[in-house]
Amino acid sequence: MPSYSVNQLFVSLADAGRELVRGRLGHRRRQPEALAEELLSTRGDASGAALARELVQAYARLDRDGKRGFFTQLAVRHDVDREAVDGAIAAYRTQPDDASLRRLRGACEPGRQELFRRLNMAPDGTRRLVEMRRDLLDLLPDHPALRPVDTDLQELLAGWFNPGFLTFKPIDWNSPASLLEKLIRYERVHKIANLEALRRRLGPDRRCFAFFHPTLPDEPLIFVQVALVKGMADKVQPLLDRDSPILPVGEADTAIFYSISNCQVGLKGVSLGNFLIKMVVAALEAELPQLRYFATLSPIPGFRSWLERALEANDPVVGADARAALAMLDAPDWPWDTEKAEAMRPWLMSLCAHYLVREKRGGGPLDPVARFHLGNGARLERVNWLGDVSAKGLAESAGMLVNYRYDQGRIPANHEAYVATGEVIHSSAVRGLMPALPAVA
Amino acid sequence: MPSYSVNQLFVSLADAGRELVRGRLGHRRRQPEALAEELLSTRGDASGAALARELVQAYARLDRDGKRGFFTQLAVRHDVDREAVDGAIAAYRTQPDDASLRRLRGACEPGRQELFRRLNMAPDGTRRLVEMRRDLLDLLPDHPALRPVDTDLQELLAGWFNPGFLTFKPIDWNSPASLLEKLIRYERVHKIANLEALRRRLGPDRRCFAFFHPTLPDEPLIFVQVALVKGMADKVQPLLDRDSPILPVGEADTAIFYSISNCQVGLKGVSLGNFLIKMVVAALEAELPQLRYFATLSPIPGFRSWLERALEANDPVVGADARAALAMLDAPDWPWDTEKAEAMRPWLMSLCAHYLVREKRGGGPLDPVARFHLGNGARLERVNWLGDVSAKGLAESAGMLVNYRYDQGRIPANHEAYVATGEVIHSSAVRGLMPALPAVA
Amino acid sequence: MPSYSVNQLFVSLADAGRELVRGRLGHRRRQPEALAEELLSTRGDASGAALARELVQAYARLDRDGKRGFFTQLAVRHDVDREAVDGAIAAYRTQPDDASLRRLRGACEPGRQELFRRLNMAPDGTRRLVEMRRDLLDLLPDHPALRPVDTDLQELLAGWFNPGFLTFKPIDWNSPASLLEKLIRYERVHKIANLEALRRRLGPDRRCFAFFHPTLPDEPLIFVQVALVKGMADKVQPLLDRDSPILPVGEADTAIFYSISNCQVGLKGVSLGNFLIKMVVAALEAELPQLRYFATLSPIPGFRSWLERALEANDPVVGADARAALAMLDAPDWPWDTEKAEAMRPWLMSLCAHYLVREKRGGGPLDPVARFHLGNGARLERVNWLGDVSAKGLAESAGMLVNYRYDQGRIPANHEAYVATGEVIHSSAVRGLMPALPAVA
Amino acid sequence: MPSYSVNQLFVSLADAGRELVRGRLGHRRRQPEALAEELLSTRGDASGAALARELVQAYARLDRDGKRGFFTQLAVRHDVDREAVDGAIAAYRTQPDDASLRRLRGACEPGRQELFRRLNMAPDGTRRLVEMRRDLLDLLPDHPALRPVDTDLQELLAGWFNPGFLTFKPIDWNSPASLLEKLIRYERVHKIANLEALRRRLGPDRRCFAFFHPTLPDEPLIFVQVALVKGMADKVQPLLDRDSPILPVGEADTAIFYSISNCQVGLKGVSLGNFLIKMVVAALEAELPQLRYFATLSPIPGFRSWLERALEANDPVVGADARAALAMLDAPDWPWDTEKAEAMRPWLMSLCAHYLVREKRGGGPLDPVARFHLGNGARLERVNWLGDVSAKGLAESAGMLVNYRYDQGRIPANHEAYVATGEVIHSSAVRGLMPALPAVA
Repeated sequence: MPSYSVNQLFVSLADAGRELVRGRLGHRRRQPEALAEELLSTRGDASGAALARELVQAYARLDRDGKRGFFTQLAVRHDVDREAVDGAIAAYRTQPDDASLRRLRGACEPGRQELFRRLNMAPDGTRRLVEMRRDLLDLLPDHPALRPVDTDLQELLAGWFNPGFLTFKPIDWNSPASLLEKLIRYERVHKIANLEALRRRLGPDRRCFAFFHPTLPDEPLIFVQVALVKGMADKVQPLLDRDSPILPVGEADTAIFYSISNCQVGLKGVSLGNFLIKMVVAALEAELPQLRYFATLSPIPGFRSWLERALEANDPVVGADARAALAMLDAPDWPWDTEKAEAMRPWLMSLCAHYLVREKRGGGPLDPVARFHLGNGARLERVNWLGDVSAKGLAESAGMLVNYRYDQGRIPANHEAYVATGEVIHSSAVRGLMPALPAVA
Repeated sequence: MPSYSVNQLFVSLADAGRELVRGRLGHRRRQPEALAEELLSTRGDASGAALARELVQAYARLDRDGKRGFFTQLAVRHDVDREAVDGAIAAYRTQPDDASLRRLRGACEPGRQELFRRLNMAPDGTRRLVEMRRDLLDLLPDHPALRPVDTDLQELLAGWFNPGFLTFKPIDWNSPASLLEKLIRYERVHKIANLEALRRRLGPDRRCFAFFHPTLPDEPLIFVQVALVKGMADKVQPLLDRDSPILPVGEADTAIFYSISNCQVGLKGVSLGNFLIKMVVAALEAELPQLRYFATLSPIPGFRSWLERALEANDPVVGADARAALAMLDAPDWPWDTEKAEAMRPWLMSLCAHYLVREKRGGGPLDPVARFHLGNGARLERVNWLGDVSAKGLAESAGMLVNYRYDQGRIPANHEAYVATGEVIHSSAVRGLMPALPAVA
Repeated sequence: MPSYSVNQLFVSLADAGRELVRGRLGHRRRQPEALAEELLSTRGDASGAALARELVQAYARLDRDGKRGFFTQLAVRHDVDREAVDGAIAAYRTQPDDASLRRLRGACEPGRQELFRRLNMAPDGTRRLVEMRRDLLDLLPDHPALRPVDTDLQELLAGWFNPGFLTFKPIDWNSPASLLEKLIRYERVHKIANLEALRRRLGPDRRCFAFFHPTLPDEPLIFVQVALVKGMADKVQPLLDRDSPILPVGEADTAIFYSISNCQVGLKGVSLGNFLIKMVVAALEAELPQLRYFATLSPIPGFRSWLERALEANDPVVGADARAALAMLDAPDWPWDTEKAEAMRPWLMSLCAHYLVREKRGGGPLDPVARFHLGNGARLERVNWLGDVSAKGLAESAGMLVNYRYDQGRIPANHEAYVATGEVIHSSAVRGLMPALPAVA
Repeated sequence: MPSYSVNQLFVSLADAGRELVRGRLGHRRRQPEALAEELLSTRGDASGAALARELVQAYARLDRDGKRGFFTQLAVRHDVDREAVDGAIAAYRTQPDDASLRRLRGACEPGRQELFRRLNMAPDGTRRLVEMRRDLLDLLPDHPALRPVDTDLQELLAGWFNPGFLTFKPIDWNSPASLLEKLIRYERVHKIANLEALRRRLGPDRRCFAFFHPTLPDEPLIFVQVALVKGMADKVQPLLDRDSPILPVGEADTAIFYSISNCQVGLKGVSLGNFLIKMVVAALEAELPQLRYFATLSPIPGFRSWLERALEANDPVVGADARAALAMLDAPDWPWDTEKAEAMRPWLMSLCAHYLVREKRGGGPLDPVARFHLGNGARLERVNWLGDVSAKGLAESAGMLVNYRYDQGRIPANHEAYVATGEVIHSSAVRGLMPALPAVA
């Protein structure tokens, strides 16, 4: 007996309904707007699947302007019906029971939410919805009126991509080339030149893990790259070097998470990374019980821009001596000019510690990477001088990197403390770096 | 590199959070009610996963009364907060924008909905939720106040078990014995004595298909059994007979769906069967292009009880002659007593056609199986005399079976017509059976 | 891209050659004898594959007499060419170099050997050859002249089924039903009534392992059934009892091999069992490090018949008292008649120990099961009174069973000692049972 | 229940025997020569597996000189025992029955043959034997006395790698990167720069197939690369061009086999390619029934060197005019110098046809690629002017390529005719190119 591809069968199913659909829609049949209305009004599976497919295909033929038009329709015509809400409120006030409450709740849900759910009947429906959201996010800056559509779509996808439905897989050099190619495309932190360069990152002393979703088996959602090393690594270039020697795995005592990349733009805001890191820690502890330290080697992407703002604003945390020294930051090759570098080192290290621990936004650290790892229960462990001397590293982080440490036993407590107070948990080494607080008056 | 079981890792993850959880909950730590509150108030993944696991385990230790207590807590304490609803209504009236609408919608959602979502972080969370609903459904008849909890849980599961997430698989004699054993347990229509009896149902001229969900890979959700035959089968016993000859598949022109069983009580009300039948039709058309007919061989489970009510109520559709003949229905072996059987045959066939086509409830046919297949777009094709002479067949359907025919090209149109008018689409053969309508006055 | 079944392609390939073959063979084309000659004379792959397939199919159509005729042809016409041997001997004597030696060796090989190798090009060729040998073994007792054909075929199969090519797999309740069904058919030691009975033998405290060959992925070659128990089991019925309680695996300290069955008659004489037992010991040690004992629970299949011969021949090892007591062996229910059983017990235990340790044939023990396990490096550990009271157990082994113990550390030494001296290594408990040797004069 | 890696268990098994082995061998225990003798004399599985592993490991530690020593031991000490042969001949003459014939045959087999078979018990034994043969082939040119060892090893491997045991698999961009990397390493005909270059060769209008053996699942044995094109391709560079447009598969009518590479040096002389090509033809016919032509695009690797010898020897087939024109062959860029190229074209085409059809060696064509394809049943179809203008193509084939056509219906007949007469079957187009035969006197 042959095995069946669900997608192929979805196609058959959709074909069965297509003719009916075509007849009914007449000349409007290839317009996504008409298809959307029809899909919302149908009740049959076969015609529903057919309509979902037609709509997905019609959408794919749209250019940017057409997509804008389609989303605008969703924002306007498939929005919440305000009259229905008012009616449901009135009914609820009259008779405040479960049924009227449920109707009120239903009335508050925009029609497009059901449309998205029905689109999932199209062949490869989930993938198409993720792609739609990617397009939508691209339109948002210019068309803020589409934001409610995005909020709805994100809510739906967050429900479908919840951790209980994800699969967790190691990726290595035996993985399909087509998948490895995607890692190269999706890598956000430290670019990968080509498959040959990726090979070293998948060597015997490296690990790579990703989350997948059952409906997108060939698409990583997020992946993390790990180096197994002796001692907590403080520089990233040696880890990326294709010709670096391979450490026998038995000698490693530390797992360094040196790159985490979200792959699907369309899943922006759907929380995946925090769960992934913890599963990787658990997986590595199971495989290599001798590992003692789990830590990231992370950029400080907001440091340089904060520093520039501080200099401009004459922030007293940057004293006169510091200000004088830091003028050399504009010298193009300062990291390789020992004199300049050493002159700036104490100021940069100190201000970096200050920036990470004390500069806040909305109750958490200003730096987005710090916010992510502290929210996960990590501790700010160490600031590393000249940890990343790539152009990007210099431009964003003034060449520094930090280690956030994941100590399995302390993660929950760290997390709880951070959530409660917003305080940046940090090591004594980091504390030692921080400048005295400027006198208040 | 070893492969990782996500469930094992979930366990590790949960372990990491467990200690914290235990500390915080103190002596209440094994009570599901306390765990539920804690789980709703936490924000960390590790402690969330730990709490979800603790709660699932605590729940598993409850007896029926304990479960009732737990669900009552969900109904009462984790219900919608009415004051919050009133507040949100007021705010919305003051400023009827998107944000306040969204808050209103949120206020209308009971807290238990979020609790269920978080429980999905427990190892095997989805499975546990399906089991919880099974327990809940068992309690409902005696405890109608729990119905809102069930409505919420059903809504959540319906979203998660939507067709776009299901996988469709053929089952045959090469399938795992542990899976085949479940078919025996879950078969609802025609009991299967044991694995040896199942063997014939998986022979070369039989097919079996099921839906699965990625989170329950070993649990069929619904399955259908198909016999490949020559001509539209009118009796089921020959299809079930272990010693029936095997038809060379190339000679079959008809696929008979003789049994469809839902497997998971906990998914009651989640629509699966309509999609399954259509996918099976598509799969069989792809495998065996020579098939010309697709039809069920179905019971009429409500016929006998309707007939008895009609007799009792002196319904004029049952004339005096019919009434006289049908007295013989109580004779235990009437189907094998040719004289009696032939005497009743015209009346039973005619009344069965009447029952299926004309007796309605809420706009559709009274018979639940008819409602299901007509709603799917099938046509009532034929009434089969003595199609099922098992004790169950006699007791429910007076020994008759019907064929509902799935004609791929007409399914959408049939479905649309049925939905629009509630009319039972039927063949001329069935029409010919129906009694003249009794004179109105 | 679709995946390809090699067997299907073999068929295509064979089809391409078939027409040519048919033309050439004319009316003799369906006779296996003609096909065999043609196959040996061809050099092309396509026609070779075609001929191999034709031959395999023609063979399958033969009845027992036809098969006898075919094998006779192999014995006579495709035997070694004696003249060629004489010629090669002469040439070797004239010029005794490598080349003439190789030719001599070639001349000594019967043509049928090459025929068998070419038959492996037929679709499913290896399977067909194993089946052919099964047929041949069935003919041998009546047709001893076919023995050389069998010797050649066994030699070929022994080379192909060498341990380096076998795959070792656990079988459990998740295995395909079609495979489990084969276990029932192939079980040789303790019959399995049906799949439900097999279920207990695959429970959590049981293990089952088999060897497979890549060319017969659905056919176990040999399998062993293991019970995980506390203490060395001395009775088999409790192990087979469907309702026996399940031991938590963590409490087991002993693995009992209570059944080993060869599955393929056609592989008779190809040594598989010795390797399998040792791999199972290794697999169980890896899975359950707490296991301390590995032992069989084995029948003594030659005991009863030896005992009868000894009684008849007035063998002095059976003294007068024993002889008197053993008359009760003919009582049908003696094992359940405590008085009779106890009266015979000392004599049967003692004679059984004697039989196993001292009765020899060709340098090894007379009992075939003893020969197998001692040759593998096991030790005769214990004789168990009324270990198997099934009809078969009483008829063959007088109701007794023995444990052969596999002590991983001692297997090689035991084996070497046994091979060197033929001595039956046994425990002091067994030694204590043995009767004094009868006085010589 | 966990699954077991046979190789790991082999290791356990070998460990069990190791201690015994070590004790017995004393200080010689790490010398392969001593281990070989011990392995041949043991009879136990565990110690056999242990010895096989020790020997394989000891061998791996040898340098080239050590390997030469080891193979010399095999050649000398584990050769045929000539005295035993003489004795067996004498015994056979006295009593020329089956048993003595079998003993004679046994006496003619060198002991190393059994040694190789036992080495297969080592973990990954088959792989190690293939590697050993690779080493041996490397030594042969300098040490011709080792040739008999190679003959034996080749015979063994040919039996194990017979077509009935091979698996046939398509390779594409979803294959493991580690496998694709091997294709790059093993490609013999048209070098592949890197994985990115390979990507085009695995595009939608390309196919790649390989043979594997169950004991080396990660090692292709031989692979063929196919381009799906419109019309029979006459130039290879467009097929290799990374930026060439992708042909919709439905438009292709021809499959061009443009590269076939053996991967395992250690399997030299084991015939694989002929079977592979035919299976690929069958696979492509099944996948793409619209294909009408199957042909290679092959080099003529012996043409240039033959031509130079012919010129030097004043072979009359090269007339005076041709000789004059062909002097331009030494001009470095002649293919791009239209005048020169056109001046040589008629002579080169004509001489190439002559070379392929008429120049013979041992009853077949002199050109090795022609010999391979004609032996497989292909026909010499066309000579392509400037089909391969790579440096290698110019140096070996004077820039020309030929198509050998595989016409499924004619393969067997072509093959038979070629085998019978050695004649090169060729098209009329090729015939038209050939020069008149020079007058004999």
